[in-house]
Amino acid sequence: MSQPRKRSGGPVRLTTSSATALRPAITSEITGGMWAHRRQINRDVSIPAGWNRLHQAGNFHNLELAAGRTTGDYVNDLPFLDSDVYKWLEAVAWAFADPALDSSLADLLRHWLDETERLLRDAQQPDGYLDSHFQVRFPGERFVQLKWGHELYCAGHLIQAAVALHRTTDDAGLLEVARLVADLVVNTFGMQPGKVDGVCGHPEIETALVELYRETGAEPYLAQARYFVDRRGHGLLGDGRFGRHYWQDHVPVRDAASVEGHAVRQLYLLAGVADVYAETSDAELLEALKRLWAEMAASKTYLTGGIGAHHSDEAFGDPYELPNERSYCETCAAISSIMFSWRMLMITGEAKYADLMERTLYNGLLAGLSLDGQRYIYSNPLQVRDGHVARGNDHDYERVEWFHCACCPPNVMRTLASLEHYVVLGSDTRAVLHQYLSGRYAAGVAGGEVWMEVATDYPWDGTVTIRLAEAPAGRWELALRVPHWAEQPTLTVNGTPVDTALTDGWWVVSREWNGGDEVVLVLPLEPRFTVADPRLDVARGAVAIEYGPLVYCLEAVDNPGHRLDDLTVDIAVAPKVGPVNDSLGGVATIRTAGRVRPRTSASWWPYTSADARARDELGESVALTAVPYYAWGNREPGAMRIWVPTT
Amino acid sequence: MSQPRKRSGGPVRLTTSSATALRPAITSEITGGMWAHRRQINRDVSIPAGWNRLHQAGNFHNLELAAGRTTGDYVNDLPFLDSDVYKWLEAVAWAFADPALDSSLADLLRHWLDETERLLRDAQQPDGYLDSHFQVRFPGERFVQLKWGHELYCAGHLIQAAVALHRTTDDAGLLEVARLVADLVVNTFGMQPGKVDGVCGHPEIETALVELYRETGAEPYLAQARYFVDRRGHGLLGDGRFGRHYWQDHVPVRDAASVEGHAVRQLYLLAGVADVYAETSDAELLEALKRLWAEMAASKTYLTGGIGAHHSDEAFGDPYELPNERSYCETCAAISSIMFSWRMLMITGEAKYADLMERTLYNGLLAGLSLDGQRYIYSNPLQVRDGHVARGNDHDYERVEWFHCACCPPNVMRTLASLEHYVVLGSDTRAVLHQYLSGRYAAGVAGGEVWMEVATDYPWDGTVTIRLAEAPAGRWELALRVPHWAEQPTLTVNGTPVDTALTDGWWVVSREWNGGDEVVLVLPLEPRFTVADPRLDVARGAVAIEYGPLVYCLEAVDNPGHRLDDLTVDIAVAPKVGPVNDSLGGVATIRTAGRVRPRTSASWWPYTSADARARDELGESVALTAVPYYAWGNREPGAMRIWVPTT
Repeated sequence: MSQPRKRSGGPVRLTTSSATALRPAITSEITGGMWAHRRQINRDVSIPAGWNRLHQAGNFHNLELAAGRTTGDYVNDLPFLDSDVYKWLEAVAWAFADPALDSSLADLLRHWLDETERLLRDAQQPDGYLDSHFQVRFPGERFVQLKWGHELYCAGHLIQAAVALHRTTDDAGLLEVARLVADLVVNTFGMQPGKVDGVCGHPEIETALVELYRETGAEPYLAQARYFVDRRGHGLLGDGRFGRHYWQDHVPVRDAASVEGHAVRQLYLLAGVADVYAETSDAELLEALKRLWAEMAASKTYLTGGIGAHHSDEAFGDPYELPNERSYCETCAAISSIMFSWRMLMITGEAKYADLMERTLYNGLLAGLSLDGQRYIYSNPLQVRDGHVARGNDHDYERVEWFHCACCPPNVMRTLASLEHYVVLGSDTRAVLHQYLSGRYAAGVAGGEVWMEVATDYPWDGTVTIRLAEAPAGRWELALRVPHWAEQPTLTVNGTPVDTALTDGWWVVSREWNGGDEVVLVLPLEPRFTVADPRLDVARGAVAIEYGPLVYCLEAVDNPGHRLDDLTVDIAVAPKVGPVNDSLGGVATIRTAGRVRPRTSASWWPYTSADARARDELGESVALTAVPYYAWGNREPGAMRIWVPTT
Repeated sequence: MSQPRKRSGGPVRLTTSSATALRPAITSEITGGMWAHRRQINRDVSIPAGWNRLHQAGNFHNLELAAGRTTGDYVNDLPFLDSDVYKWLEAVAWAFADPALDSSLADLLRHWLDETERLLRDAQQPDGYLDSHFQVRFPGERFVQLKWGHELYCAGHLIQAAVALHRTTDDAGLLEVARLVADLVVNTFGMQPGKVDGVCGHPEIETALVELYRETGAEPYLAQARYFVDRRGHGLLGDGRFGRHYWQDHVPVRDAASVEGHAVRQLYLLAGVADVYAETSDAELLEALKRLWAEMAASKTYLTGGIGAHHSDEAFGDPYELPNERSYCETCAAISSIMFSWRMLMITGEAKYADLMERTLYNGLLAGLSLDGQRYIYSNPLQVRDGHVARGNDHDYERVEWFHCACCPPNVMRTLASLEHYVVLGSDTRAVLHQYLSGRYAAGVAGGEVWMEVATDYPWDGTVTIRLAEAPAGRWELALRVPHWAEQPTLTVNGTPVDTALTDGWWVVSREWNGGDEVVLVLPLEPRFTVADPRLDVARGAVAIEYGPLVYCLEAVDNPGHRLDDLTVDIAVAPKVGPVNDSLGGVATIRTAGRVRPRTSASWWPYTSADARARDELGESVALTAVPYYAWGNREPGAMRIWVPTT
């Protein structure tokens, strides 16, 4: 078996004292299947295009202004354009660890990286300060516009990029730039006299500083992350136009009962809190993390794993306030949810966190990127109405090449480029395969290393074959996640059925393993109808179609001749897998029986007495075709919906 | 019978050549009932408080800066603070026509009015320009920031105030100020060389200029209104952050198929288009008006008459996109809808326009004001969730005394202060009573005047008694609106039942009337369950409770011990009128049978298989108490909902 080039760490690399139940894999490589294809497009199309887009959008221009290399005005009215460059850099960094990276592209990326690194060095001020927006527009004004300035947010993304690059290439140049920034932050912020006692309007630096601590061993970074976590929630930011909840400054995270405010801010913060917990074992933080994740999952998460119900403040709504047409579901928020859930999975070892990761990966996140890797969507609706009028801004429903506020595209890039790390975990006693992606993975278990080769056509087929290429001696556990939706799964080891029971979502096989052992997990896949908690009013009397981890939707283009708003689904007839749709990259379609609701009276007013409505007819029969939600919006514009009323 | 002091016109006074089926009443006075009480509070509490609020909020300060009377900075970041003063002035103007206005309050209002008039004269520049925001912040910069500057919007409100004051008091001083502004606008804007070819980002001046034409007879004002109507929709404003639909600049109104964008902008525009139609008989405009009203009513209007589904751009959504928790339903938008529908009623004589006016008056508008007349709500939700977290901004769900963007409060004031004009209309052949408010009204009919005295306890009682105090000789028609929800109404004339059929929502009695004739209309009132068009997903499987023109809601305070989100209503049991609630000003409550839905499994995930959900139980029985929607939010904060799932 060929091994990945380099035993690189991923976005999280724990310390020897981290308080987690599970630890990241030693090495990971995705070798085939749907995600390998998406990663190839990300690597070969999206990331290279990012270089050009960031130049066209002015991000590099702004840094060149800060470096004194050019003249002109700061481009764009947003203060955080540097962060897009950093997220793109992080994507480049992860791409270097991809064994499938073509050498000429690798050279090009290396060249761009070197150029960018020189640019950042030139822009960085002697004491470490680096932020093009403030250097150009507010020279000398540092760390005073904490509400909206995003200085620490940008610093966090720089740190993450530098850590990633250090992990995949041993390149310490960018890390040096980032450490100068981090040291300035450490020296600037705190409760001691002469320091700034404050937090950033947009959390992000917390998780970055913990990772920098993990990478360098320098404890002040961890202490600083803890400071930022602890000082948030005391009103230091004051009221912004959306109130204190918006930036989670209304209550300390230890005391918070619910996720609130801007969804990305909330979950970047919680990812950072999880990191702080992992390195400090602060039990109060862990309780808060569990409580907030549970509240989010149970009452503020869309079927797709998407989060954020409000457009105006990009925020969580109230419990069960999950509008379909205006689901905000920012692509970045899906990413932040995966970051948070992954950390909770490592900390607790509980399968539900991996379940939500999977749902969010296959639906809420993946819908944010076009199939060709060239266009993005910012907010991901669960429904587009017949008669929708495109309003032409960042938050509309048509995919575009770049945004005025382009946080999502490079965030998608860095996530896909590091996806291999989100598959396998290990502990002293257990190797855990929690996502089903074909590839080669190694986890440290029982004092040795488990090397597994995973082969599957998931999510189109539910059979997952795991070959243990190497296995440490002695008894240890192999744990496979059985998703919460799976019915009647089967498991064999070397052809022999395993009859141990499922434990909290894991199928755990404890035995003395040998190299060459083969485990086959079968998750029977049948299309299914899903309903929502009755408190979720917008889905009342409706079903969604799901298939394995995939949420499906109806698109107008597949259901011509009718308005989607007039279609109902007959749940007495089981949905079936239909023909493969090649124009959508070979996805399985699903066919199901429905009706076309007759148009009711031509009254001017759409509300009527309950008695009158009871006389409505069912309407003519029609066969409905559904496609995976992640593939929607890749053909002609038109209506779309996930929740379909029952006949 | 005592007559109103003065035969004042209302917000619309037609010309002799206006192309309308019906014309405003000659004189109107509301003498009792719910609305008289609300108008008393408006007159004695809200309007006087407005003077202080406008001073505290800096509106007067800004004008004093423009007048050179004081020094400092323009207060508030919004450019249209003058308009709040003008709307308040308009409210004061209408209040002068109220026979119940106390003389000492009249003196105080007169004093404030004189002071304000002097201030405006001082602030106005020699050529007529008057806009404190531009005079203070961008001196010399005129009519260039048309997208967001609101100069013409402010001018429109000034004109409306001046016209109102001229109508109620013959005071020509403010009209002089307004005409100088209007003349400057006429001389500035146009397609001729040297003029500015443009429109305002916020429509409003169109309807104001037509009214100024009606008041003064000066045709250039009408021509200018027509110019602004015709030039909108050609992209002159360019793209704002919400796209061209936001300010209705995406397509000329003649060609528009749907109401789009910012709801108040759209309907102020359509009110102006209706006025231009009425004075020009431009048939294409009338077709557009009918088409757009119908599209709005059928697919973009909430049960309450509220409009505007988006918080982020205060805009109409797609058809049937009417989220309950985030219904924007700005109070100003309800007012703009009443303005539009009233004009359509006059133009066409069709009852549906009066039906929507009534619904919007009693629900969408009235909910915007607290019962004590001292607090306002900006966006009017149809549902507040259990667990709602107040986020503390203009658009939250708790009533406050004033807003950062305080467009709504003075808009409510001017509407209530002129409400008597929205009751009766007339034509050569017909006197029309389209709203049921106790009072004295006179309409010009058949070459003479019909004077009617209306007595009713509507909306609590459906009996309306109309005594004809004076009646012109000869045969003419009395038309009474029978609301679309009314079942089995009865009508008697001098005690004799009338058996003519209803015609398109009107009960028309044609006869030779005599002074002293008494007509009694009975609209039997029973609480009823209402359902929505099935395309309105958010109301699927739910009913609303209505009673006459009133939409009811459940509030947590009336239904203690349960979470509102867990309640269902049993529609097999008819709802009944319950005890009067004195703490809400004597409203009728409604009692109905329901159940408390048992909490389902404690799964971490709120979505499950359709089969699993079918096993849910009905839950224990509970009696539900509903109150009028307009009275919600006047007690302790808590959950509220209009649409309640059926058991």
